Amino acid sequence: MNVDRERLRADLEANAEFGAIDTDEGRGRTVLTGTEANRAARRRFVDRLDAAGLDVRVDAVGNVAGRWTPDGADSDADPVAAGSHLDSVPAGGIFDGPLGAYAALEAVRAMRDAGVDLARPVEVVSFTEEEGQRFASGLLGSSVAAGERSVADALALTADDDPELALDGALDGMGFRGEGRLDASEWDAWLELHVEQSTRLESAGVPVGVVTAITGITHCEVEIRGEADHAGATPMGDRTDALAAAAEFVRDVERAATEVVASDSPTAVGTVGSLDVRPNATNVVPGAVEVGVDVRDVDRAAMEAIVSRARRSLARLERERGVETEFRRPFDLDPTPMSDRVREAAGDAGASAGIETLDCHSGAAHDTMHVASVTDAGLLFAPSEGGISHNPREWTDWDDCAAATRVLAGALADLASE
Amino acid sequence: MNVDRERLRADLEANAEFGAIDTDEGRGRTVLTGTEANRAARRRFVDRLDAAGLDVRVDAVGNVAGRWTPDGADSDADPVAAGSHLDSVPAGGIFDGPLGAYAALEAVRAMRDAGVDLARPVEVVSFTEEEGQRFASGLLGSSVAAGERSVADALALTADDDPELALDGALDGMGFRGEGRLDASEWDAWLELHVEQSTRLESAGVPVGVVTAITGITHCEVEIRGEADHAGATPMGDRTDALAAAAEFVRDVERAATEVVASDSPTAVGTVGSLDVRPNATNVVPGAVEVGVDVRDVDRAAMEAIVSRARRSLARLERERGVETEFRRPFDLDPTPMSDRVREAAGDAGASAGIETLDCHSGAAHDTMHVASVTDAGLLFAPSEGGISHNPREWTDWDDCAAATRVLAGALADLASE
Repeated sequence: MNVDRERLRADLEANAEFGAIDTDEGRGRTVLTGTEANRAARRRFVDRLDAAGLDVRVDAVGNVAGRWTPDGADSDADPVAAGSHLDSVPAGGIFDGPLGAYAALEAVRAMRDAGVDLARPVEVVSFTEEEGQRFASGLLGSSVAAGERSVADALALTADDDPELALDGALDGMGFRGEGRLDASEWDAWLELHVEQSTRLESAGVPVGVVTAITGITHCEVEIRGEADHAGATPMGDRTDALAAAAEFVRDVERAATEVVASDSPTAVGTVGSLDVRPNATNVVPGAVEVGVDVRDVDRAAMEAIVSRARRSLARLERERGVETEFRRPFDLDPTPMSDRVREAAGDAGASAGIETLDCHSGAAHDTMHVASVTDAGLLFAPSEGGISHNPREWTDWDDCAAATRVLAGALADLASE
Repeated sequence: MNVDRERLRADLEANAEFGAIDTDEGRGRTVLTGTEANRAARRRFVDRLDAAGLDVRVDAVGNVAGRWTPDGADSDADPVAAGSHLDSVPAGGIFDGPLGAYAALEAVRAMRDAGVDLARPVEVVSFTEEEGQRFASGLLGSSVAAGERSVADALALTADDDPELALDGALDGMGFRGEGRLDASEWDAWLELHVEQSTRLESAGVPVGVVTAITGITHCEVEIRGEADHAGATPMGDRTDALAAAAEFVRDVERAATEVVASDSPTAVGTVGSLDVRPNATNVVPGAVEVGVDVRDVDRAAMEAIVSRARRSLARLERERGVETEFRRPFDLDPTPMSDRVREAAGDAGASAGIETLDCHSGAAHDTMHVASVTDAGLLFAPSEGGISHNPREWTDWDDCAAATRVLAGALADLASE
């Protein structure tokens, strides 16, 4: 079975033109859901699925699926599915998403060209609004496909840049408001190829990662309230400085994560990514600070250890600095282990094709998280140069793209032959 | 010599109506330069100066001065001047500024009513745009009166909320674009009464503060650059987190100020008042942070000690965390000692009227800073309840207003009799 590196590259380079941006370094694109760039990228994807002989359908939230039923396969059998997404962050790279969508198509073409003997149909999928840059907090299409969000709720979401524009209308405007609901629970198995967005594969010199688990994610919102005072007229001893307290909290979160990494779980991370000061004037002692914390690990206990230490830090700051604090946890997802069956298929595919693979976890969320809640799911990584992503400097070597696609094709063939 | 508490209160309460805002607690007003509220407040102030028999003039930047030449005084002698400002911060209090302007008028009325024997004219002044909320960084009118900024430069400043509106046009619109330049160097002496905006007088139970010096002020702008990375995909050990570094910096500035207070100069303060994170998303390791630092003291060496320690903190963070840092110092003012002669006049006035006074410094900037560069200048404080200012809860007891005005009147009479 041969993956055609140049055919894959041509598809990805053609897709990179949609929403292409001027950039000094690398190659960037901005493809937000509902825009002309998104319409054109979707249109070409459908054309390429058509050209490969796949039966294409679009569901009510714009998810695209092209089905290939190989000669000799049972057309009623649950299909094996693969894919990713076509949307991007603003000024994102050309691989994040499109690699997985077009690699799935290339895998189908490779299987077809090789005349492999399959028992099940294969479905090539592109999910709507994975990046959540315009209509939601991300992973939108897959959340509907997994039954975690209703079609109606998804269609009612409005654009961040235009409260009058619902997803409904945006899909209509692109001609991508289809019917029904792509149902991931009907898939026998799922496998997504994505760029790693980290440096482990590059450091190891291995072209393909087989993900063992996607980390759980907790977001904490913390408010620290002190007393806004005149920076000149308020002696040091009379202050309740919310930012000085928040600074200790930021350090405590970093320390907690670092210590959990050292002692318990090397994959754990804890980040204070956002911090907003009120009134945020140089000459006013800060009266209140809002802090956004992101905690992830493949190990739920390690996540909880970091969150507990963050909460103890707040209790200490209340005691020692007289601030008031509030702690909310608006978002919490369990770690998602990948299916052993799919992981094995991927490992075997690499071994039989002579392509080295590396087991690793994913610290980033992917559509596969949702799919994994309803069927056997797996995730492959291709190396990201320098770990850079969400940036025009995002890059994956074309040979690595082809190698990862070859592993994808082999795994899909294995899974679809059962 | 009797200050009329009710006459002063009536003036201040009438002035409080201009730009009055709805508020649950206290009494607030928003009087930004060039607004209808500012026009009305200025108009009434001029009417009250007129009614008291003062000769009113308005200079090219809208500074208002009313001159009283007592019977028997030399009309050619350099006058003694007093006053403050009428503009406010958004949702500010009713005393910050107006107390000093109307107290100066009340002092003139008290001297006139008592028939005190004076050698010099007395001038009652209201400076333009003290708060710097719309056209500048503050103390605008006094900077022109002291010759530190040209009339042309001041008039060309544009409104923060309307880049098309220059101060020129804003003053014209109010009918307060006069001619010439109020020249503070022609004053024999200057004395401003202002609310303390701190709690020392309240704690001491003393109605009037005599300021020994206004602190110097340094503003530092610090940029800390790390590497923005995916919060999930970037292991703790691979990060250059700009916010974690900035958090150490915030703590270092606080610690430096606290230690300088303990060891060298109890009046020193150091504040990180503003902090802006990029990209400031919960799920992204912060790539860059900008920090605004405010350092003040009456002792220049203590200020420099805090600034040096802040810079050493940045050097350490570059070394230990691999961040890049930039340090700028866009604003620096020396401490301003008040004139011994004016302080003595104030102290004597308190003693002879049986009103206790307390020597204290000012951590806040005032128009008096500029005036002090060209003539003998002094500053009086009236107590602020709870130290609150720039807030509708700002309050000064009417008896304290009257006591401080009595000291002002006595001091002006003393200074103008020479």
